[in-house]
Amino acid sequence: MRYPLPDLNSLPADIQAKILEVQEKSGFIPNVFLALARRPAEWRAFFAYHDALMLREESGLTKGDREMIVTATSAANHCLYCVVAHGAILRIYEKKPMVADQVAINHRKADISPRQLAMLDFAMKVCQSSHAVDNADFETLHAHGFSDEDAWDIAAITAFFGLSNRMASFSGMEPNPEFYLMGRIPKTKNT
Amino acid sequence: MRYPLPDLNSLPADIQAKILEVQEKSGFIPNVFLALARRPAEWRAFFAYHDALMLREESGLTKGDREMIVTATSAANHCLYCVVAHGAILRIYEKKPMVADQVAINHRKADISPRQLAMLDFAMKVCQSSHAVDNADFETLHAHGFSDEDAWDIAAITAFFGLSNRMASFSGMEPNPEFYLMGRIPKTKNT
Amino acid sequence: MRYPLPDLNSLPADIQAKILEVQEKSGFIPNVFLALARRPAEWRAFFAYHDALMLREESGLTKGDREMIVTATSAANHCLYCVVAHGAILRIYEKKPMVADQVAINHRKADISPRQLAMLDFAMKVCQSSHAVDNADFETLHAHGFSDEDAWDIAAITAFFGLSNRMASFSGMEPNPEFYLMGRIPKTKNT
Amino acid sequence: MRYPLPDLNSLPADIQAKILEVQEKSGFIPNVFLALARRPAEWRAFFAYHDALMLREESGLTKGDREMIVTATSAANHCLYCVVAHGAILRIYEKKPMVADQVAINHRKADISPRQLAMLDFAMKVCQSSHAVDNADFETLHAHGFSDEDAWDIAAITAFFGLSNRMASFSGMEPNPEFYLMGRIPKTKNT
Amino acid sequence: MRYPLPDLNSLPADIQAKILEVQEKSGFIPNVFLALARRPAEWRAFFAYHDALMLREESGLTKGDREMIVTATSAANHCLYCVVAHGAILRIYEKKPMVADQVAINHRKADISPRQLAMLDFAMKVCQSSHAVDNADFETLHAHGFSDEDAWDIAAITAFFGLSNRMASFSGMEPNPEFYLMGRIPKTKNT
Amino acid sequence: MRYPLPDLNSLPADIQAKILEVQEKSGFIPNVFLALARRPAEWRAFFAYHDALMLREESGLTKGDREMIVTATSAANHCLYCVVAHGAILRIYEKKPMVADQVAINHRKADISPRQLAMLDFAMKVCQSSHAVDNADFETLHAHGFSDEDAWDIAAITAFFGLSNRMASFSGMEPNPEFYLMGRIPKTKNT
Repeated sequence: MRYPLPDLNSLPADIQAKILEVQEKSGFIPNVFLALARRPAEWRAFFAYHDALMLREESGLTKGDREMIVTATSAANHCLYCVVAHGAILRIYEKKPMVADQVAINHRKADISPRQLAMLDFAMKVCQSSHAVDNADFETLHAHGFSDEDAWDIAAITAFFGLSNRMASFSGMEPNPEFYLMGRIPKTKNT
Repeated sequence: MRYPLPDLNSLPADIQAKILEVQEKSGFIPNVFLALARRPAEWRAFFAYHDALMLREESGLTKGDREMIVTATSAANHCLYCVVAHGAILRIYEKKPMVADQVAINHRKADISPRQLAMLDFAMKVCQSSHAVDNADFETLHAHGFSDEDAWDIAAITAFFGLSNRMASFSGMEPNPEFYLMGRIPKTKNT
Repeated sequence: MRYPLPDLNSLPADIQAKILEVQEKSGFIPNVFLALARRPAEWRAFFAYHDALMLREESGLTKGDREMIVTATSAANHCLYCVVAHGAILRIYEKKPMVADQVAINHRKADISPRQLAMLDFAMKVCQSSHAVDNADFETLHAHGFSDEDAWDIAAITAFFGLSNRMASFSGMEPNPEFYLMGRIPKTKNT
Repeated sequence: MRYPLPDLNSLPADIQAKILEVQEKSGFIPNVFLALARRPAEWRAFFAYHDALMLREESGLTKGDREMIVTATSAANHCLYCVVAHGAILRIYEKKPMVADQVAINHRKADISPRQLAMLDFAMKVCQSSHAVDNADFETLHAHGFSDEDAWDIAAITAFFGLSNRMASFSGMEPNPEFYLMGRIPKTKNT
Repeated sequence: MRYPLPDLNSLPADIQAKILEVQEKSGFIPNVFLALARRPAEWRAFFAYHDALMLREESGLTKGDREMIVTATSAANHCLYCVVAHGAILRIYEKKPMVADQVAINHRKADISPRQLAMLDFAMKVCQSSHAVDNADFETLHAHGFSDEDAWDIAAITAFFGLSNRMASFSGMEPNPEFYLMGRIPKTKNT
Repeated sequence: MRYPLPDLNSLPADIQAKILEVQEKSGFIPNVFLALARRPAEWRAFFAYHDALMLREESGLTKGDREMIVTATSAANHCLYCVVAHGAILRIYEKKPMVADQVAINHRKADISPRQLAMLDFAMKVCQSSHAVDNADFETLHAHGFSDEDAWDIAAITAFFGLSNRMASFSGMEPNPEFYLMGRIPKTKNT
């Protein structure tokens, strides 16, 4: 492994604390928490940004919407870590065991709402040709009930995970085995 | 303007302070500082990440190298704000009034060192097909004297500004007029 | 649904018989068997071709290799049906619950052998730019122990599922829900 | 030649019989008949599929329409064998000595009907991005008088020859010299 | 330098005369005049074509419009010489110190008129997929007040500089340092 | 027809004279001569450039080589006029009735010399990504016996016909029917 995962005990206290909290909640430490921790300043900024977007309370996007954006755009970027990890969380939030695979392979054929389809179309454009986003794209969003603040959320989540995708792919980050199965079996669907 | 710039006085104190500091140093407030400030939590994470990468002292990349990566990859993403703003800083750091235009239009023909060319080739691959980065890419970097830590710096700067490019383009962020001329005239080259 | 699935009882006897045989073996009727059956002559040719390639006994490719080719190239074609259905069979043959997702998202980062990686690289080239296949591609295969007959198998499977991908995507064929979970849970891994 | 053409006499009787029949009708044996015959099971499936689509009597597509689809999509795939061989048949069926070259080089500028142009636009989308086919594409076809069964014909022919293109290109199949001139000289236009 | 610039005195008299005239007017000899002069017949045709398009008096395009087309399409072709040299002239004609960088990086976000935006959209289509230009593209031009003669001008300028871009890039032609700063400083804007 | 062909008698005397000369030699007037004549200054520059490249006597490229470059790159640009017209001339010069179709559809599979294949590879790179041409490309040419002057010829022909392709496609120029058959029948092969 080119960039070995650091030992948890060697990390700054604030990072250790947050990682232990995640471990307690999830039952394991998602690799991204350790993989980025070798550079504490980057780690802190990364997770502060992540939380600002993914935990934002006043957002017009549900948590399921947000994970759906992550899964679709990460698949467009061929990022193994993010598709597997966030696909798992998407299945759990949406309580749909099949939706992550659908959205990752071809979001146009996924079993999602027309509103979610418009959301993903916008996210894919920000992901793949942000320079060409224009008024017509915002109007399409508005027609599905999204505000400009929602558009910002869609774009910012796409942009942030584009960063995450590149870091994970370039460094060979591997998803924890636990993610592959999470949310696929109805009984375990309750987080 | 879809997302109007907030009034400086309406911003949280820590953000105001940092913006005033930048204004004092630069003589003007670069628009990205105001454009993102409408969402303080995102603003703080964005600039913390920026500083972690661009001000990192132990890096094997010079500040000029880093701005060169930003300029080249932002041009690949057709991001007006970042090419103009970071092209300006690149000219100043490298003390080369023509290098930013060269790197933005076709980095292969730019008047840069073979080491910088290899650096930009790697950055462009992370920018455009990070999923295909492989050992051969790292070996090419090593052959030019870059360590794996340097590779991380190149990739992380590319990834971070990929985020920045998407935010600027989707929201229509405009570069301040001051940037266009900065570093182009030999006399004013000293920051 | 644009092309409704025909009633099993309305189908020609030979097709009914084969479908019932599959149902008995799998526990359900994979949708492709019904979706194509509305045109019996095409159905017969499709499955004859499928069996000629996928059940070919003298092949140098294992059944797992073959399903891996299908999964990787179907993902490149964004075919929901084939990725989900053949990803399931791949997991079972390879006894690796995570391999299908890995191969579908980014085959370069999958936990597979160097020989399988070379096999997939060749398949992807046949899938995406068959006109550019040249001697160097065959030599790379030979270096990994593949014969020209094996190359034919790789290419023919890729070509056949390229057909299948287009039929499934254009017509909106949906994978049976059963496929999504098959081969993911260690205990049920034995077919 | 990597995959030498088998001797006609070495082939199974049913394949020999069909090939001799073709030879009698055409005056020569098109290379695809021999090139694929080295694998009899694949040969039988290939030609059964071919005939199911190209000889289908109840189709709303004329035989000329079908060869036009083959020529246009094979050109998009840069398949020398199929463009030359099926271009020849297209010229004969349509009684237009120039149409094959037009359709192969740029179908938008070809001297064909608006209905045929819509047919080729749909075929090209199935050929190049079948995952993005949507209702609007079917509606465009309907506006030109095509039924959903006709759409299936267009898509299936495109998909089948996508298979054929990949087999021909990967294996270096060469068109018989006879095809290049067929249907180009008015007098010999009657089949 | 692979193709060294010829000595001015070694050139045919007509070429010398024209180059001296340009030098007198501009204060320096733009490299393209010397770089192409090693082949006098090509030089004469190149500049005759250039002048026929760029100096055409009856055109509905202003000189600024024309340089804008050159700058935008040359950037799409990543041609360092043409973006820098014609960007300079564009700044001067339009009296806008920032317009060249804007048009080169992302013409959609440039501070130009809707008419100029439509002009550049057409030019970019001719540049990147001329085979797909159709009636709808001309209608869009007409809606912005362009005639078919104007369309010819836009297309011909794009096509001519596509030639120029390829010559400059393949041969490594470098822009004269003077161009980088021309038209950027308000006072010196009058040529 | 958007840009009607002008009446021969209405054209300037020098243009008339050259067109009549071509008509006498070829037996018909190739449409490009009339289509461009509506703008005499552009016509003169176009044909002066054409002749400088295609009739250049000291070139290391044969006339067949040059037409081969035109045919291959014009096919890459999907230009109907140029592929059909120059494919005809290519057949005649090379005395190979099949070579134009081969080169247009997939130059890698054409029956040409390794030297010609290297020539077309270089031409295709100039055509499609001239900004990425580098020393390695020249070294490959040198290894096949091409000088830097030959490289200039290859690049300039490619660049000039890229201009021609865009003019023909945007304006809907149609090849004369005579071209389609020229050089296809052995007996008429002598020009």
